Amino acid sequence: MTIADRWLLPDGMDEVLPPQATRMEQLRRALLDLYDRWGYDLVIPPTVEFLDSLLTGTGTDLDLQTFKLTDQLSGRMMGASADVTPQVARMDAHSLKRNGPARLCYCTTVLRAKADQHQGGRSPTQVGVELFGHAGLDADIEVLRLALTGLEVAGAGETHLALSHIGIYRALVHAAALNAESEYALFEAIERKAFNDVDALVARDVRDPALAEMLQTLPRLYGGQEMLDQAREVFAGAPPAVTAALDELQALCRAVTANHLQAEVYIDLAELRGYQYHTGMVFAAYVPGYGQALAKGGRYDDTGRAFGRARPATGFSMDLKLLASLIESGPRGDAIWAPADDRAALTQAIAHLRASGERVIQALPGQRVGPREQRCDRQLVETNGEWRVEPLA
Amino acid sequence: MTIADRWLLPDGMDEVLPPQATRMEQLRRALLDLYDRWGYDLVIPPTVEFLDSLLTGTGTDLDLQTFKLTDQLSGRMMGASADVTPQVARMDAHSLKRNGPARLCYCTTVLRAKADQHQGGRSPTQVGVELFGHAGLDADIEVLRLALTGLEVAGAGETHLALSHIGIYRALVHAAALNAESEYALFEAIERKAFNDVDALVARDVRDPALAEMLQTLPRLYGGQEMLDQAREVFAGAPPAVTAALDELQALCRAVTANHLQAEVYIDLAELRGYQYHTGMVFAAYVPGYGQALAKGGRYDDTGRAFGRARPATGFSMDLKLLASLIESGPRGDAIWAPADDRAALTQAIAHLRASGERVIQALPGQRVGPREQRCDRQLVETNGEWRVEPLA
Repeated sequence: MTIADRWLLPDGMDEVLPPQATRMEQLRRALLDLYDRWGYDLVIPPTVEFLDSLLTGTGTDLDLQTFKLTDQLSGRMMGASADVTPQVARMDAHSLKRNGPARLCYCTTVLRAKADQHQGGRSPTQVGVELFGHAGLDADIEVLRLALTGLEVAGAGETHLALSHIGIYRALVHAAALNAESEYALFEAIERKAFNDVDALVARDVRDPALAEMLQTLPRLYGGQEMLDQAREVFAGAPPAVTAALDELQALCRAVTANHLQAEVYIDLAELRGYQYHTGMVFAAYVPGYGQALAKGGRYDDTGRAFGRARPATGFSMDLKLLASLIESGPRGDAIWAPADDRAALTQAIAHLRASGERVIQALPGQRVGPREQRCDRQLVETNGEWRVEPLA
Repeated sequence: MTIADRWLLPDGMDEVLPPQATRMEQLRRALLDLYDRWGYDLVIPPTVEFLDSLLTGTGTDLDLQTFKLTDQLSGRMMGASADVTPQVARMDAHSLKRNGPARLCYCTTVLRAKADQHQGGRSPTQVGVELFGHAGLDADIEVLRLALTGLEVAGAGETHLALSHIGIYRALVHAAALNAESEYALFEAIERKAFNDVDALVARDVRDPALAEMLQTLPRLYGGQEMLDQAREVFAGAPPAVTAALDELQALCRAVTANHLQAEVYIDLAELRGYQYHTGMVFAAYVPGYGQALAKGGRYDDTGRAFGRARPATGFSMDLKLLASLIESGPRGDAIWAPADDRAALTQAIAHLRASGERVIQALPGQRVGPREQRCDRQLVETNGEWRVEPLA
């Protein structure tokens, strides 16, 4: 093996160097502080769990993304966490067992065997919130507002919010009594907006002509808020759950406007991301120039059931690495240089400066690299036995 | 599988719940801020790397502790990081390539296939610093001071500092020309302070009677700083490297005193932790009542060689989870309760309070759990159309 081979990192498993790592830390703090002020308590899920706990009720997508490990202590299979949400749902259902609403937040790096088509790397740092124990739309609105406020805090700028609702497709396929295989094939074609495939599948599997037309129209329903009026016409004869979902989408749009959130709302009823576990509204936030969503969230009411306590749930997560890469800032250069000298007066002066929040870099004896290379803009200089901070000569 | 099985976590793979997670976050910030003020730049190493990079030059201990994963993209073996230090050494040698001293810090959770005998869990959160590019004792002193200052910041209280130097045993076995197998057997017996085994191995493998006596005495040399005088007598005829090592230990003791660091110094020349990669002084800090070291560090000058750039290096790490468990504090109860109401005046009042740093929890319609259960001590009340914060009735 050559030395060059040892430098290589696996695809999508990134290291973060200065000053980018400091930017990520600052953003982490700003977001966790924001969540805290909204009443969300921090939790830290385990990096590794038994596979049974990790994958219960989460569908095959997550299974394929999960690295598998043998636990040499118990002989059981473990998995590295690929998504924090089911873990936090387990913590809510079992570890915390709170009555009433539970607001939880997290910031943790997950691992993925292969990169998500919607995300870049295989080791995203998920930062987000989950709100358990309330089935009403107000919980969804709180979570959506918090997601958009977080993007403002992160300085994301112009934001596009894509809204959808899993309940529409679910109610239509339920009314059409599709079997699981047909349901999945049609879902997959609708999500791809593959109109020809959708038409063919509907012609083959859906008997009721009214339902057939609605399912064929679904992937064509996207656009601004005004599209909801068109959707109401298309789904006039649909099951009541469809109308309820459209009402929810309308209320979410109103909440964005009423709270003066800086986001342009876009509705796409074919957006069925997380169909395997989402149960209500889903959203994703984008900024121009980035194909990947900066924040993704929605309602998922059944995840806790596998842990003995089904609770309504809604939440979102963002990739801190992606978010931090949007912020532009150079390396800091505001440190104070101190000479290599261990006299008590200097040691004391350095300690005082550090205690007051200054960055002080002390030279090491014989080092050839000077204060500028170590990004200092000032220096400690002795005058008449006293140490003072002065600009670099 | 029963529901109860799904709750179990693998041994040593912990979740952290409120309020402990918040305590860890506060401590993380306090320590990273401290390191920053001393001039250390934050880096984030990858959670997973190719096994070749991860284990090069680190010895078999780390290999046995490393979870192995197949990379389905490249077909190569990867490992989950079990120790951050070799990763940061790679980043210094290859990714940063700085001239002169490089000061780096990190806070990251690692995974271990089996628990370290010196540490509790299998998923410790390592927080620490590495100082590359300076071979002198001043770098070791800076790192030791920073470790002890960090423990003060963490509120660890009464601290015991155990000091040792790998150079003494290394110089003695080199002079005795032991082969690798004998060297390892004797190292292992000395570290266990198994005097009979030490005597037997020395009698079998060491010809020179003066060296034999020194090696037999080594595990018996532990105690306060005054023990160094005794060691100087014992090692009067030893190779110069032994005397140099004793000089370094003496200087480190002086630095602790001169900087008024709150630690009782204890010297144990049989403490050869990390013998496979350490090259100079090693230290560990303890508090009464905890068997595990709170901080561990030392000099390791050769780790970067495998990456094409051998640099002198010294550093330490602490387990943030262990450290946070020492701090006692109850859950916070200083939030403001707001009713479920979406009128603009209330929304604005809440936004102002949150912007000023207050935690405001807004009720969700129909929720049965009140402000006390949600740990609020105040509430927002409307009087004549204005919202004011009042104590809870």
